[in-house]
Amino acid sequence: MRGFSRRHTVESALEILDAHLARPLEAETIPLQRAAGRVLAENVASDIDVPGFDRATMDGYAVVAVSTDGASSYTPLPLKVVGDSFPARPFDEAVAAGEAVRIMTGAPMPRGCDGVLPAEFVDNAGSPTVSALAAVTPGKNVGRRGEDIARGTTVLERGRVLLPQDLGVLSSIGRSDVRVVRQPRVTLVVTGNELLPAGTPPRDHSIADANGPMLAALAARDGAVVDFPVPVADDSGAILAAMRAEADVVIVSGGSSVGLEDLAPALIAKHGELWVHGIAMRPSSPTGFGAIGRTLVFLLPGNPVSCLCAYDFYAGRAIRALGGRSKEWPYRSVAATLDRKISSQIGRLDYARVRLTNGRVEPLAIGGASVLSSTTRADGFVVVPADSEGFAAGADVTVWLYA
Amino acid sequence: MRGFSRRHTVESALEILDAHLARPLEAETIPLQRAAGRVLAENVASDIDVPGFDRATMDGYAVVAVSTDGASSYTPLPLKVVGDSFPARPFDEAVAAGEAVRIMTGAPMPRGCDGVLPAEFVDNAGSPTVSALAAVTPGKNVGRRGEDIARGTTVLERGRVLLPQDLGVLSSIGRSDVRVVRQPRVTLVVTGNELLPAGTPPRDHSIADANGPMLAALAARDGAVVDFPVPVADDSGAILAAMRAEADVVIVSGGSSVGLEDLAPALIAKHGELWVHGIAMRPSSPTGFGAIGRTLVFLLPGNPVSCLCAYDFYAGRAIRALGGRSKEWPYRSVAATLDRKISSQIGRLDYARVRLTNGRVEPLAIGGASVLSSTTRADGFVVVPADSEGFAAGADVTVWLYA
Repeated sequence: MRGFSRRHTVESALEILDAHLARPLEAETIPLQRAAGRVLAENVASDIDVPGFDRATMDGYAVVAVSTDGASSYTPLPLKVVGDSFPARPFDEAVAAGEAVRIMTGAPMPRGCDGVLPAEFVDNAGSPTVSALAAVTPGKNVGRRGEDIARGTTVLERGRVLLPQDLGVLSSIGRSDVRVVRQPRVTLVVTGNELLPAGTPPRDHSIADANGPMLAALAARDGAVVDFPVPVADDSGAILAAMRAEADVVIVSGGSSVGLEDLAPALIAKHGELWVHGIAMRPSSPTGFGAIGRTLVFLLPGNPVSCLCAYDFYAGRAIRALGGRSKEWPYRSVAATLDRKISSQIGRLDYARVRLTNGRVEPLAIGGASVLSSTTRADGFVVVPADSEGFAAGADVTVWLYA
Repeated sequence: MRGFSRRHTVESALEILDAHLARPLEAETIPLQRAAGRVLAENVASDIDVPGFDRATMDGYAVVAVSTDGASSYTPLPLKVVGDSFPARPFDEAVAAGEAVRIMTGAPMPRGCDGVLPAEFVDNAGSPTVSALAAVTPGKNVGRRGEDIARGTTVLERGRVLLPQDLGVLSSIGRSDVRVVRQPRVTLVVTGNELLPAGTPPRDHSIADANGPMLAALAARDGAVVDFPVPVADDSGAILAAMRAEADVVIVSGGSSVGLEDLAPALIAKHGELWVHGIAMRPSSPTGFGAIGRTLVFLLPGNPVSCLCAYDFYAGRAIRALGGRSKEWPYRSVAATLDRKISSQIGRLDYARVRLTNGRVEPLAIGGASVLSSTTRADGFVVVPADSEGFAAGADVTVWLYA
């Protein structure tokens, strides 16, 4: 057994990683129905005006505005009702001064009309001749052609994560499909002779895989297409075969260190390139990454807290970037005050799980990297940078929230 | 055409709605694989200790701690290596003082051993007798049985939205499935004779449905199971048939007001109960809701901005609550300073779309409730309460962020 000959700083590890994340994956075309939350891979411009015609924005009477001049409840002016305009059932003739067309919100404005007198300013509704009780100015209660989107306008820009209302806009300009960044395909390789499939009650000295379900959920959260893994034995052939999946990213959990059964680092070095192995952070120092062919391969420690932390720092970053998303953590952060000090060592970044109660941050004392339940008891984490010996009680810190 | 005889305040509308949202839907059992993001419907207690045995937390040599007393690099003490303990391949015999078992992280502690001497404090590794270069105290580098989760402990509480690490914890206590709140089934009924299916290029005076894709994405975001809708004609029979879907929530878009083609309110009143119709807010005042049988029915205005706003205030609230989630908006909020004033009327709540740039809030002047693209140009919205005439330039306001 040997130690790591040299550890990368987190900073240098991220720099090496980012050099391989310059471009997102290629684009693919998908139907509008499935586009929510996907990342736009094109600038979308409209080749039509929305609306494509002038329309009423109120229920009432379409009129030649000037013919209502001077109308009031004291001096009602007569308007001859010559027809109806409903949405998709327009009034097809021209309208003259002194005439009116009963119109519904969204219905096309009849030719000649340039204003809509709202229903509440009309008397004798239903009669052949109604009375205008107010004047309307030209353009009043009319939505002009192109007022929502003028032809040629770029409505959504490349890189945008599509919101529900974006789908509405895409639909309204007649787009039934859209170009988005392909989702990274992620293969999980969870190794360990002691591992039973996730959710299996432990027996003898075998335990259920906890990292597989966690990593599958993390990768899906970050936009990946990922299968739920079955544990792989600590066997070079089996691990290599599993790592050679058709995938953009392979995440190996367990066997990432420098111990007897830590097979994965040597396999990557032999069959690809191992860029980083060993990082000055706690937990997760036995983390590594590199590539086999065009597939990025991440080696995450088997200890579940280390696995979570290393995923968020490195593997998740790659998945998010390849998918066209922000590389940064998808966690909200809040500023809050430390209740008790957090100690760290100069030269090593620390990831401290904390509870947050009424703006007070309580570091969780419990256990080490093997205690996964510390991450379910924690509300989030505080990062102590490598150049710091920690934070004193009372210090203001940034808490990254798990939820 | 009539106006609304009386408008509810937003407050009273929410109170009426909330009275019908006292309980989430019933629970269902789903496999662990699909549990991320779902809402736990049970308190989960562990019926096992995790780990189920004492284990090494470092690679090294398991020893009877006392037999290393006094060891240092100046006074190495011999240890006879009697075997190996690997994960799931434990050393089955008892170990005596002066003996050592080579052990891997996570492997079971042999009987008699109570400490692990890390590999770096051992000389002559590989020989039948190794040299201890340091002393270990009892318990050192040993993870005790139950240190992660003690049998009987409640690990996750009812109502929790399951995080990736929660799936790891569930797996580690042997849970392959979990009780969660059933997802609300939502049926969308998008009405309008002028509507073409979503994403269809407009022709003549027909336009593509923009609300359907938006509402489908909103409801999915809030945890619903929802189908992508096809527009329904403005016809009482067709609308009623569509509203009578097997669903927990029906959302009708369009035809919600008091105009000639506004059929839905009367249908609900006739075949069920219309609790609220007409709300003192802008946009979205023609919003209504009630129930037909056990299905909650929401009437959202056809104008797309009104539709989005009314969804978030009412329909989304119901979907979130039925699914066991927080009723409140799933949007982040930030405090920021208004660049220009926002005017409103006393007695009416306003929903103002805004841009947020460097902490400055710019209200979007453009257009009314029919301009959906205003919600894609906006970063979020500001709510002006009913008891306010608006906010002056320079005021600090809360901005709810769409993304």
